[in-house]
This record gives sequence, C-alpha cells and structure tokens, in this order.
Amino acid sequence: MARKKEQEFVQHITPRSEDFSQWYTDVILQSGLVDYAPVRGCMVMKPYGYAIWERIQQEMDARFKATGHENVYMPMLIPESLLLKEAEHVEGFAPEVAWVTQGGMETLQERLAVRPTSETIFCTMYAKWVQSWRDLPMKYNQWCSVMRWEKSTRPFLRTSEFLWQEGHTIHATPEEAQKETLDMLEVYREVAETVLALPVYVGQKSDREKFAGARATYSMEAMMQDGKALQAGTTHNFGTNFAEAFGIQYLSREGKLEYVHETSWGVSTRLIGAIIMTHGDERGLRLPPNLAPIQAVVLPIAAHKEGVTEGAARVAEALKAAGVRVKLDERDTVSAGWKFNEWELKGVPLRVEVGPRDLEAGQVTVARRDTFEKIALPLDGLAQSVPALLAQIQQTMFDQARAFRDAHTRVVHTYEELAEAVQDGFALGMWCGDEACEEKIKAELNATSRNMPFDQTPCGDTCAICGKKAGRLMYFAKAY
Amino acid sequence: MARKKEQEFVQHITPRSEDFSQWYTDVILQSGLVDYAPVRGCMVMKPYGYAIWERIQQEMDARFKATGHENVYMPMLIPESLLLKEAEHVEGFAPEVAWVTQGGMETLQERLAVRPTSETIFCTMYAKWVQSWRDLPMKYNQWCSVMRWEKSTRPFLRTSEFLWQEGHTIHATPEEAQKETLDMLEVYREVAETVLALPVYVGQKSDREKFAGARATYSMEAMMQDGKALQAGTTHNFGTNFAEAFGIQYLSREGKLEYVHETSWGVSTRLIGAIIMTHGDERGLRLPPNLAPIQAVVLPIAAHKEGVTEGAARVAEALKAAGVRVKLDERDTVSAGWKFNEWELKGVPLRVEVGPRDLEAGQVTVARRDTFEKIALPLDGLAQSVPALLAQIQQTMFDQARAFRDAHTRVVHTYEELAEAVQDGFALGMWCGDEACEEKIKAELNATSRNMPFDQTPCGDTCAICGKKAGRLMYFAKAY
Repeated sequence: MARKKEQEFVQHITPRSEDFSQWYTDVILQSGLVDYAPVRGCMVMKPYGYAIWERIQQEMDARFKATGHENVYMPMLIPESLLLKEAEHVEGFAPEVAWVTQGGMETLQERLAVRPTSETIFCTMYAKWVQSWRDLPMKYNQWCSVMRWEKSTRPFLRTSEFLWQEGHTIHATPEEAQKETLDMLEVYREVAETVLALPVYVGQKSDREKFAGARATYSMEAMMQDGKALQAGTTHNFGTNFAEAFGIQYLSREGKLEYVHETSWGVSTRLIGAIIMTHGDERGLRLPPNLAPIQAVVLPIAAHKEGVTEGAARVAEALKAAGVRVKLDERDTVSAGWKFNEWELKGVPLRVEVGPRDLEAGQVTVARRDTFEKIALPLDGLAQSVPALLAQIQQTMFDQARAFRDAHTRVVHTYEELAEAVQDGFALGMWCGDEACEEKIKAELNATSRNMPFDQTPCGDTCAICGKKAGRLMYFAKAY
Repeated sequence: MARKKEQEFVQHITPRSEDFSQWYTDVILQSGLVDYAPVRGCMVMKPYGYAIWERIQQEMDARFKATGHENVYMPMLIPESLLLKEAEHVEGFAPEVAWVTQGGMETLQERLAVRPTSETIFCTMYAKWVQSWRDLPMKYNQWCSVMRWEKSTRPFLRTSEFLWQEGHTIHATPEEAQKETLDMLEVYREVAETVLALPVYVGQKSDREKFAGARATYSMEAMMQDGKALQAGTTHNFGTNFAEAFGIQYLSREGKLEYVHETSWGVSTRLIGAIIMTHGDERGLRLPPNLAPIQAVVLPIAAHKEGVTEGAARVAEALKAAGVRVKLDERDTVSAGWKFNEWELKGVPLRVEVGPRDLEAGQVTVARRDTFEKIALPLDGLAQSVPALLAQIQQTMFDQARAFRDAHTRVVHTYEELAEAVQDGFALGMWCGDEACEEKIKAELNATSRNMPFDQTPCGDTCAICGKKAGRLMYFAKAY
C-alpha cells in the first residue's frame, strides 16, 4: 500500500550534498510541515507547520503592538478599478492576479482580484479616514492570506496562496515614514536573528528589485545552505506615490492640504522555508529553541519499569512549570528508536530521556539536536539547567549559520570574482547603479542584486560588473 | 465637509426603541468597529472591532487546544469538482459561491470556488492521511475568512466575506463523533456565557434548518434586544456522509476497512453582532469585562494640576500589574467630557477618574458602564478592588441579558400564542416534526424553528402550529 509508506521510519532523506532541492522536499513532507493540495500551486499547512507559523506570528505581533501598531482586517476581494489606480503597482501585479468573475449565479460587472497585496484597499480607506494632522500617524497591520498566480511553485518559497502579515502606515512627514520603514526592518531583523536564528543582511534594494509602486524598498536577505539568497522580509517607503493616486490628504497644523507619506512591510510563511534551508541537516529539521513549538520532548525509556512513567511525567511537569514548551511522548505503539528518529526529523531542540538508571542516579539524559551531544543533568535544578541549555543551543545555531554565511560571502572586484562567488554564496562588490549590469548578471549568472548595506564603506571604486566608476556597495547572489 | 462629521462627538445614536436596525448601524459605525468597504457586501474591520475578534479568538483557541485540537491551514480555493462530490452540500452552497475563473492571463479549465466552508478540502486531505485506527481521531481547526455571495448584507450579521474558525474532526466510532459534536457545543456555550455574557439556548436543529450535508446540527441561540434570535454557533455531526462521498476509510483493529465519522463546527465574527445587540444601549456599546480589549480606561482629570498626570500613570501601572487590560488616556486635544462620551460609546466596562481631589483623598472615582454607578475606591488595594468590580460587572451584564431573555421566552400551546410570542421573543412549544409547519410559520410569521433543547420535558402533546400529535419540544423565533 503506497500510502502506508509515508508514515514509516526511518524514511530516506536525500542527502543535501546530493540534491539540495530534493532534500528540502523530503524534509518538509516527512517532518509533517505541509502537504500538496488538490489546488494548483497551493499548499496545505499541517499542524506542525502551522504551529511554527503561529510562533512566528506571536513573536512578530507582540513587537508590532509594542511599537504602536493595531491589527485590522480588509476585504480579500479588490475591484479591478482600484488595482488600476497606481500605474507601477498594477503593472507589477496584474500578471499574477486570480480574478473572481462570478458571484453566485451572476456574472460580475467588474472583475474582483483576490488580493495579491492590499495597498490599494488600505489607501481607499485611509483616504476616507484621514482629515487632519491629529489623525496621523495611522499604523495598521493585517494577518491574512494572499494569492499570486505563480507559474512554478514550491511549498513555503513560492506558492499561489500564502500566509503573511502586511503593515500599512501613513504619516505626516517624509522623515516619519522613512523612520517607520527602517524601524520595521529592524523589528524583522531582530526577530530573524534572535528568534529564528537567521543571520541576515539588511539594506536597500535596487530600483530594479524594489516593490511595484515603492520609492524605496529595504530587505533582509538570508543565506541558505546551498549559498543562495532568500529575501526574508521587506519594508517599503512609498513616499506620496499612492497618496497622490488615491487622494489621501490631510489638513496640516498650518491649515494646508498635504499628501500623507506611506509605508508597507511584510513577512510571510516564506520564513519557514528560510528556517529549514538554513538549519536543516541530513536527519531533518533543526528548530531554534526560541521558535520551536516543542522545545523539549520527554521520553520514558523502558516505561514498563517501576517509576519510569511517573518520573517522566514529573520531569515534563517541572519543565512546563519552568516555562519550557514541552511534550511528553508516552506512546506505547512505537519503539524508543522510532521516537528518537521522529523527534530528530521534527527538529525538536532537546530530547530528555527518563529511564530506570537515570532515575536511580537522580538524573535525566538529554540529547541536543544541534550537536547530538548527550549530557546527564541532575533532576534537581532542571528548571534552571534546561532553559540554560536551550539558550546555549539557540546561540550555537545562530553562530553556525553566521559562520557559514560569512564563509560564503566574498568581497569581489571583478566580474570573474563575482561570477565565482555567486556559485555558492554572496558577492559583495561595487556597483555603478546601472540596471544593465543587473540584467547582465541575471542573464549570464542567474544572479541578482540583493541589497545595499547601510554601511557603505567602499571596497573599490569601479563596478564589479562593467568596470565603470561605481559608488554603491551591493550584495549579489542567486536567489530563491 | 461631510467626512469631518463622522468624527465629532456627541453624535446622534438613534434610540433602540425607535429603530433597532438603525440603532445597530449607528453604534457599529460610531464606535469604530467597522466601516463599509468598496467591495459589495464586504466590511472593513477597524482596530477596535478587530481587537474584539482577537479576544474571541484567544478565548476559543485556548479551549480548542486544551481539548486536543490542532490548527492547520487549507487552501482558500476549492476546485468545482470537489464541491460537487457531496450532493446536499453543493446544493446548499452553490447559489452563494464566488468563482475564480481567471488566473493571471489565462482562463482556468475548471472554476475554483473561494471557500464558502472547507468540508470538501478537509475530506480530500483526510482521505489521503488516514490509514488505520491508530491515526484516529484527527481533530483539526482553522482560522480563516470565508466567502458567501449574499444578496443583502449587514456588518457582522451577514456579509459576503467573514472571519471564522472551522473545526473538522474524524473519528473511528459514531459515539466519539457525537461526543465531539456535543463537547464543542459545550465549549461554545461556555465561552458565550462566561466570556461574552450571552445567555444561550443550546439544542438540536430541525432537518430543515440543519447544515447542508449534516446528519445532525446543533446550535446555540442568543436573543437580541428586539426579541429576535441569533444563531451564534453551530456544530455538525456528518456521520459517514462525507466519508462515503470522499472515500475516507481506515483499517480497524479487526482489520476491516471502515468509514470514519466526521464532525465540523464553527463560530464567526457574527458573535460580535450578538454582543452588540444583546448588551448595547442608547450610549453605544457595552462590552462584558471578560471580553473587553480595554477593561478599564484611566483618565487624568484636570491634568495640569500638580501630581495628576503622575497619579494617573501610577494607577494605570498598578492595574496593568494586576492583570487588568487598561488604557491610560492622556490626550490633551479633547476635553474630559468628550473622553467620557467616547469610552462609553466604545463600551469600556470601567472608567477610572484620577483628579486632584481624588488624589488628596487617597482614592480614585470609578464609573461602571453597565449601571452608570460611580464609586470611590481607595488607592490602596486597587489591584484587588478593580478586578472584583469587573467580575461584578460581568455577572450583572449576564444576569440582565438572561432576565431579558427569560422574560421574552414564552411557553406556547396554540398557534395564536406562538404568533404572539415571536413578535418580541422566543416561543417554546410542542412540534409535530413536520416541515410543513415550519414553512407555515416562515410564510405567515417570518419565524423559524431554532432548536430542540436537550431537556425535552413536554409542555403538552399537540403541535402548537397544526394541532396534531407532537412529541418534540422546540424553540421558535424570528431570526437574524
């Protein structure tokens, strides 16, 4: 029975070195994050995958609220006429819109887009809501799904439908809008680095790579284990672009009608793809403890022996009381070895074994998912020792990822150096600012400009691509 | 400027007694819960409205997880062929489906429904995931938006798009499925009564009123202040109906292929409509403390006087530390009277005034939104006295609503009594079980059967509608 096989252990995971792409697919399916849906290009997020998304939401949402943002919900259908209002925006999104043309038994007079993003609808409402400088800023966010009719799709990385948050804010001055754009980039970076253990390069995108309708786009770029870049979050400063198209004006303190300055910013379920491809290994997922829905799994060993079941339950209770997200795996339908494999595959940071000999010795045996190290910890003090160990795992995983990234980031001065660097990592080099250079490396190397770091200390004065005079420092890479 | 007017205080709220429907519209717009969207039949949930939904989500989601359910996410688009698999289901939903027919530049081969509900896609995945009795039960839930192309719409009560949760579970036995169906009804009832302060009648729907494709539907029915019923949540037992249509089978312990038994259950943003129409008054919303996003608003009075600003901040801090959801309103752009009106309109359960005389007397002055009573509370002990007062408000609001409902629920024996009772409340009477009786009261009284209480102690033995022999006790009412 072919189906049956899906649930057997140990399943074969294709080695990363052999076929990174197949390794990724094996890991996401076998660890139970997602499944393919009976709808073109869509994915089903299974409980474990969705639990990771919920953890990302909790961490992000708390920071959005702490920085004065409020959640709202806008309709998922957007009339075509609204989408057409801002020229660059519609040009960017029109090719990938899914259109509702029938409602019940009637054919609609106007097509409705399933939102690919919600700038146009936020702008419509802002135009209605804003009167005076007293109403500003308005800082709203929504958690929702969006739809982009993609030609080729991969779970988490590029799917026709995906989950995300989109922040949309309006401000009285360009300075405030710019500050918001950079503040939210910093929120993203902080969550990426401290929660997801993803080291990221933050900076400004080129005009070619910026968001359709934005005056400036900023991104955080993470490096996957195959050396490719993954854009893990973006923030946009629209200036008055949309405000002019949608007539969003306010009466200033001085009694003048002024356009608002607008931003938007988003992260999506793509982040889960980034986590897998940054931290995963031959045995499956590795989740950083600050993110993991389950930080420690407690396993009774030889559960039939006296005191083991109770001992394991006590350990789980103590860890839970200490604030650890813990799971007690008491199943008697599978072997201990099967459980070891399963929780390794699922990337739980810490396995806590409670066996008769452990209990006799007044200890538990813990195994780190990051290093496979096994350590005996005294039963007394688990409430301190386990959280400390989790913090250590978090740091180790971040350090590993950063070391990999740094080793695969090369400063380049010539086209040859750049071409070589992007084969397995990032190139950091000077760029003249000419889009023709971006098109050249896209065509010849399948690489793109990623972003310009805020620290623009030059590494030369000529463009690594065309050799002309250059004043911009830019990261280049192949990208997802 | 017409727009300007929307933000002025005190705006006129139409009296409930004069025009209940207009009162509702005035309250939801003026209190900032929602706005109309530039999309037919859709609503925009503004920050305050969405914050109420987030509170409902938190309360529900914690209970779903505590009872062993896990969250997932299924695609929002459902191929027409899947929707067609269960005959009753498609018949029920087809007239109100919004169809995607174009993706990007291409016309789709098969129409895709924007999900009106997700039974068909859950069933498709369950058929793939279930192998043996060991895999059962599967108890999944998702939070999402759904689309139903409604002809006439009202915010929260009936909109083309709305937010909800839909639980979908599969079980090995009919007993387990029935237990799940009733357990989730009990979760809904408990949240409705203890958090939302909504007294509800729970019971089973008639065949005419049950969900398309269900073998049995249960509901909780709340009574609005105009005496009409609002179906506030439903749970469905599908038996093996969908399992047979979708081929969801498992290998039993005895090695036999069996169909699974399935349930689904949902509550939506409709609950917010129920809260407004149960608790609201001439001054606007009244939110029960256990639900309210802001439980207490702290207002500095005569903030220019020495110590007031600091005193108010200290009070707010103390309440926050005591676990109260508190807001400190320090705005100096509006008067105290303006603030009183605004927070009353928004239904915040408790207003805490901190003025110079209060501080001198070592107290604060609190005003209850439910009774308008003003009470002096000593500064010492606010961490106890305020939560105690909030608990009292919660109980008072529930008692008020229940007293109203009980006074408007009448036991009826004849058609005349039933016809009179449903003019301003619920009729509880015997019913023969014949759908013709339901059609008669629908046509003549615009009333429907609501549900059959679990306590079926008869109040007679003849049908209140047709006079024939009757064995069922049923609630009847006009309904939203």
